[in-house]
Amino acid sequence: MTKTGDDQYERGLAALREASGDAAQRLLDALADVSPELSRRSVTWSYGDLYVRPELTRRDRELLTLGILTGLGGAEAQLEVHVNGALNAGLTPSEIVEALLQAVVYCGVPRAVNATLVAKKVFAERDLLPVRPTPAG
Amino acid sequence: MTKTGDDQYERGLAALREASGDAAQRLLDALADVSPELSRRSVTWSYGDLYVRPELTRRDRELLTLGILTGLGGAEAQLEVHVNGALNAGLTPSEIVEALLQAVVYCGVPRAVNATLVAKKVFAERDLLPVRPTPAG
Amino acid sequence: MTKTGDDQYERGLAALREASGDAAQRLLDALADVSPELSRRSVTWSYGDLYVRPELTRRDRELLTLGILTGLGGAEAQLEVHVNGALNAGLTPSEIVEALLQAVVYCGVPRAVNATLVAKKVFAERDLLPVRPTPAG
Amino acid sequence: MTKTGDDQYERGLAALREASGDAAQRLLDALADVSPELSRRSVTWSYGDLYVRPELTRRDRELLTLGILTGLGGAEAQLEVHVNGALNAGLTPSEIVEALLQAVVYCGVPRAVNATLVAKKVFAERDLLPVRPTPAG
Amino acid sequence: MTKTGDDQYERGLAALREASGDAAQRLLDALADVSPELSRRSVTWSYGDLYVRPELTRRDRELLTLGILTGLGGAEAQLEVHVNGALNAGLTPSEIVEALLQAVVYCGVPRAVNATLVAKKVFAERDLLPVRPTPAG
Amino acid sequence: MTKTGDDQYERGLAALREASGDAAQRLLDALADVSPELSRRSVTWSYGDLYVRPELTRRDRELLTLGILTGLGGAEAQLEVHVNGALNAGLTPSEIVEALLQAVVYCGVPRAVNATLVAKKVFAERDLLPVRPTPAG
Repeated sequence: MTKTGDDQYERGLAALREASGDAAQRLLDALADVSPELSRRSVTWSYGDLYVRPELTRRDRELLTLGILTGLGGAEAQLEVHVNGALNAGLTPSEIVEALLQAVVYCGVPRAVNATLVAKKVFAERDLLPVRPTPAG
Repeated sequence: MTKTGDDQYERGLAALREASGDAAQRLLDALADVSPELSRRSVTWSYGDLYVRPELTRRDRELLTLGILTGLGGAEAQLEVHVNGALNAGLTPSEIVEALLQAVVYCGVPRAVNATLVAKKVFAERDLLPVRPTPAG
Repeated sequence: MTKTGDDQYERGLAALREASGDAAQRLLDALADVSPELSRRSVTWSYGDLYVRPELTRRDRELLTLGILTGLGGAEAQLEVHVNGALNAGLTPSEIVEALLQAVVYCGVPRAVNATLVAKKVFAERDLLPVRPTPAG
Repeated sequence: MTKTGDDQYERGLAALREASGDAAQRLLDALADVSPELSRRSVTWSYGDLYVRPELTRRDRELLTLGILTGLGGAEAQLEVHVNGALNAGLTPSEIVEALLQAVVYCGVPRAVNATLVAKKVFAERDLLPVRPTPAG
Repeated sequence: MTKTGDDQYERGLAALREASGDAAQRLLDALADVSPELSRRSVTWSYGDLYVRPELTRRDRELLTLGILTGLGGAEAQLEVHVNGALNAGLTPSEIVEALLQAVVYCGVPRAVNATLVAKKVFAERDLLPVRPTPAG
Repeated sequence: MTKTGDDQYERGLAALREASGDAAQRLLDALADVSPELSRRSVTWSYGDLYVRPELTRRDRELLTLGILTGLGGAEAQLEVHVNGALNAGLTPSEIVEALLQAVVYCGVPRAVNATLVAKKVFAERDLLPVRPTPAG
């Protein structure tokens, strides 16, 4: 955090675009004429600051974010970004679906189903349906 | 899921005890005279059914559960079980703390702080304080 | 829980279809090519395992589920299933609306309104609008 | 709602005391020197206004409230009031425990466990432990 | 609260219409044939009872409500009412956007983004885009 | 955000200490040996970055934060910090209590009561009980 906010923002924006592609860009564009400051913090604090820290791998972080967003509920737009991010970090559709299945135990069927239907939408866009089971690495 | 519930429960109970030790046992004991059926489902559906599936490693599952519980909020007793489970699955204190730090972006400071103070309690019991940064594997 | 998971699933699926009809089937169909395992657990653990237990009547269970889902928030798809389930278990539209009205006190206007608008949608599909007050049994 | 607020408050206060006894009174007392207005609305809007409406029985309302509070989370003090209210409305400990067990499917293990431990506390105070299964009426 | 409920309802309805215009009316209309009682309590308890109390100004109350609804999550319809209410109480688009930006710290990016996109919709309807920073009064 | 993170942290820490005194310091101290990075972000992103922006006054921000935290639920430790912050920003006990009363309508009795009891604790520490109504400024 000794970098300036501008540096972190530029770094975060590049990383977010690489990680999540169009889904993230659509959210940033939607915020552009109403709250560029919110757009900026979202990018700077996540991909600009935390995601570059070495304590966890990118794959760990995206798996974790799927869990946080599913537990939180009501975060469908961000889930869309991070299902893309998870795929781009090397998680398979089968691993993503399994992660959302596990959420049932802790936050119940409705949040797990909501999250899984977001994943389905992303998988459909990326031609990854139907999902087939694959062994963990 | 072709096993009987009894098989899954026995398998889950053994796995949970290995994974989380005393913290899980305390919760099960607390439920024993009021809702053994809830105790039974908690064990059967998590460690007896889902956690043995090969799609995700034990380490992945415990990391994910930390995220789900932090995003959900109000799950301090389960977090205590799963901070123990995370340590026993090979996550370092530094990785656990980093996971809870990442949660700030998605569910805000209060839930991240609550979860981190649960982790601190577990680390203290296991003589793991202070937490020092370690590189990801 | 001494039955096998397969038995519970088949029993649950039949019960769910009887209880909720098309709304449940639409959710199960939506999950079919992305997470049949989630679909399976949702059915097995609810209508296959818990709902057949004698401690509460079907009417009690559906009334209760309306409360849980309203308090949880963000569970509109499940509410649609269970407003149908509640009607099919003998709850009148007036009783359902009253239950969601009571929720205002505990979880506030927005969640009560969201749930009531889901009920309205189901009532409209079943030609049950407008809702008229009826005395409790 | 054509009565004055004063009438509703007096009626509600009497009903609440009858329904929940000491647990409700402790909450009202705790609010007395900081927010008597909050105490007043809580009583007036619940037991003074809604709970006297004929559309649902007292037993239905208390069962429902257990569901709403469990789904909401973080409502332990109110749960204590309404576990008492449920017992006083004729729900058995076994029915209450079953209701909280059902919540697992919809809002997950942590909220179901939290609510069940509140029920245990109330049952202990009223010498109702251990809970034994009883058939629904 | 010594007024009758009827008086409070009439007063609240007039105040709500003045405060929020069409967005509130649309919600009340949607409830009319399913739960007029919910519609009535929503109006009576907010604008009929609390909002007329002198302890906080109308501007304070609308700012506060934006915070409560954003923190709660899943309250998009009410947010639409209260972004209108906030504008009509004298809050500028810039102040509203800043309030929702502040929410990031406490409830995370997803809820802040959801709320900001509701504000954008209202601003667009009232021809207030793009939002430009303005100094606090 | 063109300042470095270090500058923002130092500025935020000074502002937080001035705003909230001992309650904030206790939270920061509790995090010191487990997650100084979380402590740092909490300070930098709130009082170091957002709270110094001119779009809202300090009083507006503290009022808003009370709303966000009450709506979110489970944020008692942060509420303690911000009830102190609200008092130090010029909000009277009566205004704070009124704000939490308003929350009932949107997030229900349990969260409003929980928040009010935190306020009571802070008022007691600062010898501000009982709370007496005061007119808005």
